[in-house]
Amino acid sequence: MKLHNYFRSSASFRVRIALELKGLAYDYLPVHLVKGEHKSERYAAVSPSGLVPALETDSGEVIGQSMAIIEYLDETHPEPPLLPKDPLGRARVRALAQLIACEIHPLNNLRVLKYLVRDMKVTEEAKNTWYRHWVRSGLEAYEAELQRLPASTFSFGDTPSLADCCLVPQIFNGKRFDVDFSGLPRTMAAFDACMKLPAFQRAQPSNCPDNEG
Amino acid sequence: MKLHNYFRSSASFRVRIALELKGLAYDYLPVHLVKGEHKSERYAAVSPSGLVPALETDSGEVIGQSMAIIEYLDETHPEPPLLPKDPLGRARVRALAQLIACEIHPLNNLRVLKYLVRDMKVTEEAKNTWYRHWVRSGLEAYEAELQRLPASTFSFGDTPSLADCCLVPQIFNGKRFDVDFSGLPRTMAAFDACMKLPAFQRAQPSNCPDNEG
Repeated sequence: MKLHNYFRSSASFRVRIALELKGLAYDYLPVHLVKGEHKSERYAAVSPSGLVPALETDSGEVIGQSMAIIEYLDETHPEPPLLPKDPLGRARVRALAQLIACEIHPLNNLRVLKYLVRDMKVTEEAKNTWYRHWVRSGLEAYEAELQRLPASTFSFGDTPSLADCCLVPQIFNGKRFDVDFSGLPRTMAAFDACMKLPAFQRAQPSNCPDNEG
Repeated sequence: MKLHNYFRSSASFRVRIALELKGLAYDYLPVHLVKGEHKSERYAAVSPSGLVPALETDSGEVIGQSMAIIEYLDETHPEPPLLPKDPLGRARVRALAQLIACEIHPLNNLRVLKYLVRDMKVTEEAKNTWYRHWVRSGLEAYEAELQRLPASTFSFGDTPSLADCCLVPQIFNGKRFDVDFSGLPRTMAAFDACMKLPAFQRAQPSNCPDNEG
């Protein structure tokens, strides 16, 4: 398999974690988002939507969207599972993942921040306030959802799941912008539990070949 | 089952479509987003994250996030299926759904538009330009993905799927803001095919009990 991705892309990071958790080898193909490589003709031939990450299977099929990729990996390489077996548990994990992937991250990715500054002409300070607002309020919602679930080591249960694949990159991302993580005990405990695992460590941006520090 | 939702919420509309496609009866519980009812204590007891929609199962479990709810419905009421059986087909449908639910809709929902106007003090015109920019560029990405897939009646294949549950509300939403839908032949053909089906018609905002026109 080949993963078209970028070291600092949170969505790419999610997929790298899943690949590492499942012990799957892959070729790392960097797509430099800041240099606009995702908008090149070469990349359009890989991913028509021009989005990163994209997983290229051994038979040459290209799959986009990080959560769709992770579910594909989970269905084709079931061990260790990244979703529970029962429908309610699966819904809980997917809803947690989507709280990050549909409520927080879309507001904070590179093209949105660029639009705010270049097209809307908002100040750097207003952009950073926007950023922190959505990460903080989104993580408060995540924490509120965790608080109603039984005690667990990770976001859901005692093994890492799709939810943790989404949570960890969001925390990394928030740290770069000095987001306040206080008062989020279960969320940060899940993050800490993840970061003790070699799979999460190996997948992090600082270990990527295109890492620029 | 009970669905906590709002007639004009795109994410609520997605779930209503899925319930109608599967022929499942449900109680319609309106949560008025513009009046802030989702932020009430009463609703926090239902949905800790305060987001709409939320599905309350017959055993009293509450599930949030529209795509998670629809997958839950598909797993617990498999007919008619809203996802293909094979992993690659499932990944294609999920990726299309996420192109809308993770790339377009999060930038255009009520709380984000409110933040732009109230907190960032952008003009009404700049807000509308922002809105159209993300819907248009997102649908162009959707169209580009459809163009590489085999010919089909709906977004993927010849039966409606999770992708169509997400597409149709996004088009409704875009129409309210006069988005340009030209040059999106496969996308709009899928939309038209959906709107011929009674399930999509029944689920639309104008048929909701809390519809304000």
